[in-house]
Amino acid sequence: MSEVFGVRRGRLRDRCAATGSAGVLVSRPANVRYLAGGAPPGAVLLLGPGEDVLLCPRTPTGDPADGRPDEQLRLTVLPSSAGDPAVAAAELARTAGVESLAVEEHHLTVARHRAVGSVAPRLYLADLGLAVEQQRLVKDEEEIACMRIAAEIADQALGELLESILVGRTERHLALELERRLVDHGADGPAFATSVATGPNSGQGGHRPSDRRVEEGDFLSVCVGANYRGYRCEIGRTFVIGTTPADWQIELYDLVFAAQRAGRESLAPGAAYRDVDHATRQILDAAGHGEGVAPLTGHGVGLEIDEDPQLAPAAMGKLDACVPVTVEPGVHLPGRGGVRIDDTLVVRQEADGGPELLTITTKELLAL
Amino acid sequence: MSEVFGVRRGRLRDRCAATGSAGVLVSRPANVRYLAGGAPPGAVLLLGPGEDVLLCPRTPTGDPADGRPDEQLRLTVLPSSAGDPAVAAAELARTAGVESLAVEEHHLTVARHRAVGSVAPRLYLADLGLAVEQQRLVKDEEEIACMRIAAEIADQALGELLESILVGRTERHLALELERRLVDHGADGPAFATSVATGPNSGQGGHRPSDRRVEEGDFLSVCVGANYRGYRCEIGRTFVIGTTPADWQIELYDLVFAAQRAGRESLAPGAAYRDVDHATRQILDAAGHGEGVAPLTGHGVGLEIDEDPQLAPAAMGKLDACVPVTVEPGVHLPGRGGVRIDDTLVVRQEADGGPELLTITTKELLAL
Repeated sequence: MSEVFGVRRGRLRDRCAATGSAGVLVSRPANVRYLAGGAPPGAVLLLGPGEDVLLCPRTPTGDPADGRPDEQLRLTVLPSSAGDPAVAAAELARTAGVESLAVEEHHLTVARHRAVGSVAPRLYLADLGLAVEQQRLVKDEEEIACMRIAAEIADQALGELLESILVGRTERHLALELERRLVDHGADGPAFATSVATGPNSGQGGHRPSDRRVEEGDFLSVCVGANYRGYRCEIGRTFVIGTTPADWQIELYDLVFAAQRAGRESLAPGAAYRDVDHATRQILDAAGHGEGVAPLTGHGVGLEIDEDPQLAPAAMGKLDACVPVTVEPGVHLPGRGGVRIDDTLVVRQEADGGPELLTITTKELLAL
Repeated sequence: MSEVFGVRRGRLRDRCAATGSAGVLVSRPANVRYLAGGAPPGAVLLLGPGEDVLLCPRTPTGDPADGRPDEQLRLTVLPSSAGDPAVAAAELARTAGVESLAVEEHHLTVARHRAVGSVAPRLYLADLGLAVEQQRLVKDEEEIACMRIAAEIADQALGELLESILVGRTERHLALELERRLVDHGADGPAFATSVATGPNSGQGGHRPSDRRVEEGDFLSVCVGANYRGYRCEIGRTFVIGTTPADWQIELYDLVFAAQRAGRESLAPGAAYRDVDHATRQILDAAGHGEGVAPLTGHGVGLEIDEDPQLAPAAMGKLDACVPVTVEPGVHLPGRGGVRIDDTLVVRQEADGGPELLTITTKELLAL
C-alpha cells in the first residue's frame, strides 16, 4: 500500500513543479490523509525538493480513524511550544531553499496564511487550488474496497434497525442506535451525522433527529453511512410504518423511486454531471415537484462525505470510471412528509457491468 | 432574552465604529450564535450602519441545536444559486454604503476572503480579529444557567454508567452509551467526542475510544460533556475496576487529585492564567511527572468546548468573575495507564462563595 502514497505525492509534485513551485504545503485533513496514508489531528504535509515530511503537533496515536502514515515519509513531531505546524513547515521549506511554496488557499485562513508568509519574506506563496481534490476524484480499487466495506456496514446497521420495534421511539434514539450498530459492525465511526426523520419531517435532506416519536402511518426516512479506514458511504431509505401505505404515500414513493432509478441508470463514463442531475430532476419536475428539489441530486464521496463532482443543473464536467457518487433525490410535502432514496454507486464501464451499487438494501417500499 | 443579543451587537458595533469600520461581517459559527441567538448551518451575520441581517443559505429548521435567531434581526434566506452567504453579505454592505467592513481573518479562508473582496473593489476589508471571542469570555447568568444544566446532564449520564456492569465492555461501547444517556437526559448532543480510556490507555487526554475491553484491575478514565442550548461543559473522572486499587494506583490518584484541587482553589477574579496553571503543574512537576503534562492544564468553555483563556505556563492575562474554565490535569505512565480529573467551574468572587463547581460527581477514587 505504501507505494500508492509515494505515487500520489509524485504526481502532485510534478504538477506543481510544472507551475513553478518546488514546495507544496498540504493542510486540508482529507488531502493530507490521501497523500500521506494518515492524518493525525492537526498534521500538515510538506512536499519538498528533498524529503517529504509529515509535521504533527503531537505523537500519532495509531488510531485507525486517523490512518497510518506512510513509512517512507519523514514524520516530525513538533514540541508543544512550536505553534502552527504549517508555519514550521514553511520554515523547513525555506531552509531547504524553496522559493515558491504552493498552499491550499481554500483551506488556510487569512490569519494562518499570513503567519506562514511571515516566517520567510522572500518565500513566495502560490495557490495550490483544488489540485489534490481533483486527484482524489477517481478512486483506485483499494479505495473502492474500503467504500464497499463501509457500505456493507451501513446496510447491516440499517437491516437490523428494521427488525426492531420502531413505533413510539424518537428520531434521536433511532439515530443513536444506528450509530452504535455501525461501530458494532466494524466502522471507525459514522460517516456523517445520521439523519432519522418521521412523519412530517420525513423526506427532508439533512434533517437533524428530534424528539418526535414514530407513529403508525408515518413515513420514516433514514440516511446513514459508515466511515471505514477513512472512506465513507451514504445510504438513504424511506419506509412506511404500519400495515398498509396510503395511496398518496405509494404514489410519492413510486415517483421518487423512478427519479432515483433514472439517475442511477444515467451513470456512465463520459456522462455530463448535469445530464445525470437532469435525468433525476426532470421526473420530479414533470410531476410538479421541481421547486422543492435540492440544488444537488447527488455528489462524489470518498475520504469526505461531500466531494466533487456535484450532480447539479449548472455543474461542468463529465464522469469518469471509478468515480463513486451518490444519487439521492427526495420530495418533501410540507406538513405531510416525504420520500428520499439515496445510494452510493461507483461509475463503471458498460463492459464492466455498468454502475456498481455499493448500498444494496432493498428499495421496495417496506411497511414496517 | 432577545434584548441580550441586541446589546451584544451594539457593543461590537461601537467597538468597530471606533476603529473606523461601519460594517462587521461575522462568519465563525459560535460568534454568529452569540450575537444572533441562533446560527443555522452556514449562516453569516452582517452588522451594518442600518439594519442587522442574518444571511442563511437555507430556511432555518428551528432545530434547538442551532438556537433560535433573535426576532429583531432581519433574516434573509438566500436562493440556492446564491453561493457563499459571506459574499452576499459584502454586496449588501456595499449597497448600504459601507466603505470599511471588518471580517474574521482567523475564520475566513484566503479563497473566501478574496471572493468577499472581489464583489466591491472599493470596499476595504479590515480585520475584526478576536473581538467577538473576547466579548464571549465573561458569561452572563443566563449563559451560566445553560452550562449548569449541561453539567447536570453529564453528571447524570456518568452516574448511570457507573451503576452498570463495565468489565468486558469496549471503550467504544461505553462512549456510545454515555452519548445516548446525554441525549436521554435532554442534551442537544455531546459537547465533544466522548473519551473512554481503559488500562494502558487511561489518563491520556483526548484518547479516542478503541476496541479494548475493560479488565479487572484497570484504571478507567472517562471525559464527557453535554451540549445544552449551545453551551457546553466537560467532566473527567478516573475509576479503578475491581475491589482493591493497587498501591501505585492510589498514589497516582492522590497526586493528580491534589494537583487538580490546587488548580481549583487558585481560581479567583484577578488570578493570572499562568498562576492557575502553575498551581496545578508544580505538584505534578515536584513528583517527577512534569514532562508528560499537557501544554494546558485547563481552558475556557462556553459556546465552544475549547475557548479562551488558556491555562498554560506562557498565557498572558487574568481571570475575571463569571469566566467558566476547566481544571484538568492528568498523568499517564506509558504501558500502565494513568489518571485524569477534570471539572468545569465558574470563577466567582470570594464573597459569592468562591469558584462554583458545575460538575459535581464525586472525586473520591471509586472501585467499581
